[in-house]
Amino acid sequence: MTKIIECIPNVSEGRRSDVVEAIAAAIRAVPGASLLDFSSDASHNRSVFTFAGDAAAVKAAVLAIYERAVPAIDLRSHAGEHPRLGAVDVVPFVPIEGVTMAECVALAKDVASEVARRFAVPVYLYEDASANPARKNLEDIRRGEFEGLAQKMSAPEWAPDYGGPAPHPTAGASVIGARMPLIAYNINLSTDRLDVAKKIAAGIRHSSGGFRYVKAAGFELKDRGVVQVSMNLTNYEKTPIFRVFETVKREAERYGVAVLESEIVGLVPAAALHAVAEYYLQLAGFSADQVLENKLRAAE
Amino acid sequence: MTKIIECIPNVSEGRRSDVVEAIAAAIRAVPGASLLDFSSDASHNRSVFTFAGDAAAVKAAVLAIYERAVPAIDLRSHAGEHPRLGAVDVVPFVPIEGVTMAECVALAKDVASEVARRFAVPVYLYEDASANPARKNLEDIRRGEFEGLAQKMSAPEWAPDYGGPAPHPTAGASVIGARMPLIAYNINLSTDRLDVAKKIAAGIRHSSGGFRYVKAAGFELKDRGVVQVSMNLTNYEKTPIFRVFETVKREAERYGVAVLESEIVGLVPAAALHAVAEYYLQLAGFSADQVLENKLRAAE
Repeated sequence: MTKIIECIPNVSEGRRSDVVEAIAAAIRAVPGASLLDFSSDASHNRSVFTFAGDAAAVKAAVLAIYERAVPAIDLRSHAGEHPRLGAVDVVPFVPIEGVTMAECVALAKDVASEVARRFAVPVYLYEDASANPARKNLEDIRRGEFEGLAQKMSAPEWAPDYGGPAPHPTAGASVIGARMPLIAYNINLSTDRLDVAKKIAAGIRHSSGGFRYVKAAGFELKDRGVVQVSMNLTNYEKTPIFRVFETVKREAERYGVAVLESEIVGLVPAAALHAVAEYYLQLAGFSADQVLENKLRAAE
Repeated sequence: MTKIIECIPNVSEGRRSDVVEAIAAAIRAVPGASLLDFSSDASHNRSVFTFAGDAAAVKAAVLAIYERAVPAIDLRSHAGEHPRLGAVDVVPFVPIEGVTMAECVALAKDVASEVARRFAVPVYLYEDASANPARKNLEDIRRGEFEGLAQKMSAPEWAPDYGGPAPHPTAGASVIGARMPLIAYNINLSTDRLDVAKKIAAGIRHSSGGFRYVKAAGFELKDRGVVQVSMNLTNYEKTPIFRVFETVKREAERYGVAVLESEIVGLVPAAALHAVAEYYLQLAGFSADQVLENKLRAAE
């Protein structure tokens, strides 16, 4: 069976296109790694690369990024709107096909160890790769940013998982880990009442008592005269799309409002959609092996 | 993009395993053709092979089947419960990925022409490959079977599309065509009232006024004390699963009966499940490119 891991490194360079292009070229040069996308934001001064492959290929691609980024990026003179801790700021590994989360966690630790050893960049593990509840959340780890890193790292509770005890002088530190694929999911409501979208968002998001793997906010879509519950679903296996949709729909009914439509922004794993079909159709005994394309792939 | 066509030839031999195995081996030997499954039924005296590949590979595999089957199978001495017209009885080509129905129709005609020329087996086109409404349905073409074939073929309206004018003396004729993937789909109802399942089946199937691409019958599942609406969905794009499910559910309500569960038997194309998710979630502007696995595949 094919094993596919997705990796989405965030690098603290969004203005010098030669540096960004050199990193993209380094990823493309790794056999078995497919560069799916990359984009730079000048005001964030940050670029995001998306690539996929088996564990060996994505590991080689991540190390190739460090080879280009560490000498080229000096955080002492880096400015941008987006918070950052290091030249290679965040490296998540995401299980896509034929790969368990445990394998992605093992890969994150393997890569983290190699990064600390070869590039003298200390690494914090995060999300599923971190066993420490206080150090799972990216925002918590990154708080204080590069400028506050030396002081933060000297506190025992912020000793890095690999490398250290001090930050790399120009490349800072990296946050490396494993997480489920994110699904950016919006539900548009047939009303212009922003308060309804905001109340529903508050009801379903984890931070205010809702589902464990939902981040949500309410917005107005002024040009269309409707409102939106905008969400990130951070674990579609444990908080599935259909449960979130059904809850938003029921809560909207309570205000006399209907769901106009929903939308998936960007990519979604096939399994997340299959779970919706299973729920709605009340499918008994359904298995991913029954999806024709999976069967064909397995026979290749 | 990968191009995948599925082909499911039905061969009139289900007892002599050496003949069946030789055909399976011939398919496996074709580069680019993946044999997914094959099974024989002794009482039907018939075997079904399922394989996939691009047009060139599936064509080569079909011709390899004829090379083995035509000399080995003599319909003059063949007996079995299943109706049949030829040694290689039916050959459907099914578009799976990156392939249009028009391409499958063109392939069916190309293969049919080659079969008539190389093996002197006349061919009837069927389903989407046939332009003649009276000759689209497999049952209509096969009526009279091998034993009645010489007489049937002599009628002008039953002249074969390729080859002829007489049947092959031992291998009869073949029915070759293109069709959508079949989905075997059952809905179980929380009742033991067989009349309810039968009435609903009659309401949704094409033959008695229901949906164009639904075949359906009502059954009892005696060991479970429930009834089943058992269906074949012959075109999930034009008669989608969700519309059938929703209709069965509403009709059952009319008798005070609930849907217990539904089940997909065997394989289902991913697109058929994605259409269910799109419907239930009221997804706006969703495209197959947004499925992560499709994106990865396209980048390979």
